[in-house]
Amino acid sequence: MARTGRRPGAGGTREKILRAARRQFARGGYEGATIRGIAAAARVDPKLVLHYFESKEGVFSAAMDFPFDPAAAIPALLEPGLDGLGERLARFFIEVWDSPAGARAHAIVRSMVSSDSAAALMRDFVTREILARLAQALKLDRPQVRASLAASQLVGIAMLRYVVKVEPLASASPDRVAAWIGPTLQRYFTDPSATRT
Amino acid sequence: MARTGRRPGAGGTREKILRAARRQFARGGYEGATIRGIAAAARVDPKLVLHYFESKEGVFSAAMDFPFDPAAAIPALLEPGLDGLGERLARFFIEVWDSPAGARAHAIVRSMVSSDSAAALMRDFVTREILARLAQALKLDRPQVRASLAASQLVGIAMLRYVVKVEPLASASPDRVAAWIGPTLQRYFTDPSATRT
Repeated sequence: MARTGRRPGAGGTREKILRAARRQFARGGYEGATIRGIAAAARVDPKLVLHYFESKEGVFSAAMDFPFDPAAAIPALLEPGLDGLGERLARFFIEVWDSPAGARAHAIVRSMVSSDSAAALMRDFVTREILARLAQALKLDRPQVRASLAASQLVGIAMLRYVVKVEPLASASPDRVAAWIGPTLQRYFTDPSATRT
Repeated sequence: MARTGRRPGAGGTREKILRAARRQFARGGYEGATIRGIAAAARVDPKLVLHYFESKEGVFSAAMDFPFDPAAAIPALLEPGLDGLGERLARFFIEVWDSPAGARAHAIVRSMVSSDSAAALMRDFVTREILARLAQALKLDRPQVRASLAASQLVGIAMLRYVVKVEPLASASPDRVAAWIGPTLQRYFTDPSATRT
């Protein structure tokens, strides 16, 4: 009964795991859910969950239809070092939203705004898997403040460019928007004075 | 039948105008609606609309339950000049969201994310009455880019602090958040290089 070209059994198992994962994440939050618990709920071996999705993060990304895989994307953005990280991250973020995957990002924003529990679930995931990865790479004080300030600038651009569609942000090229907000992200990441209060 | 302490007739007229205004704004957008059209729909004299609300902007703010009055707030923020504008604006924005009026701001974000027409209506209002007022005060090139970039940082802080509740942004004091994002707003407003691409 699989809708894809996969073998019916494999497609069915994968979908069964994802359905179980959605229930487990909804019940226990991102931190509370475990590979073992998801496997038990789906009545499969935990190794099969890891075979399909590699990690809890991978199950979550697939179950929530997350528009990119942080486990692959964040290390790739960090790999060239902190120089230019702000603009690289801005460009990556805008390219995701401008791509067909942008519809999935939009759906996630909608669910977070309309549901406190969806917001809490996504917050835990983003805090642990995206902000923590970024923060770990920063060499200055208060890396969580820095990473979350950068996230606030990115989320604000998404809101104005894609949701509210305010000009000139809505129609500007990705390069232009990345050039505008890149220095803001870079300052949050690397300027010693950015976390002074 | 007025719910407030006003004279029943007055309360009834005011509510009648606001109901007509909501219909006119929904139909014609912020730009398309007029005091005259709202008055006709409410079957009152246009002078009465101006008596209660002073301007189209005033009717809109009241009809949409906007959390502050831009016609009063923006000139007050601009009055001391461009020096320190970023931090003043950041503090004002956070104080509104931290106050009881924050619930109304939250409701507006929710309606904008879930409805394209609500987003379009609010976009026209914010572009004309808030961003244009700010842009007019800026002395550099591309004032609309500058004002909308500043707005993106503010909206992103609202999303992370109040909607998604990401730490440490959610629990930080208003002063601290204003000190973190004030320089970003100030740079967008006054740095010649901020709009270079």
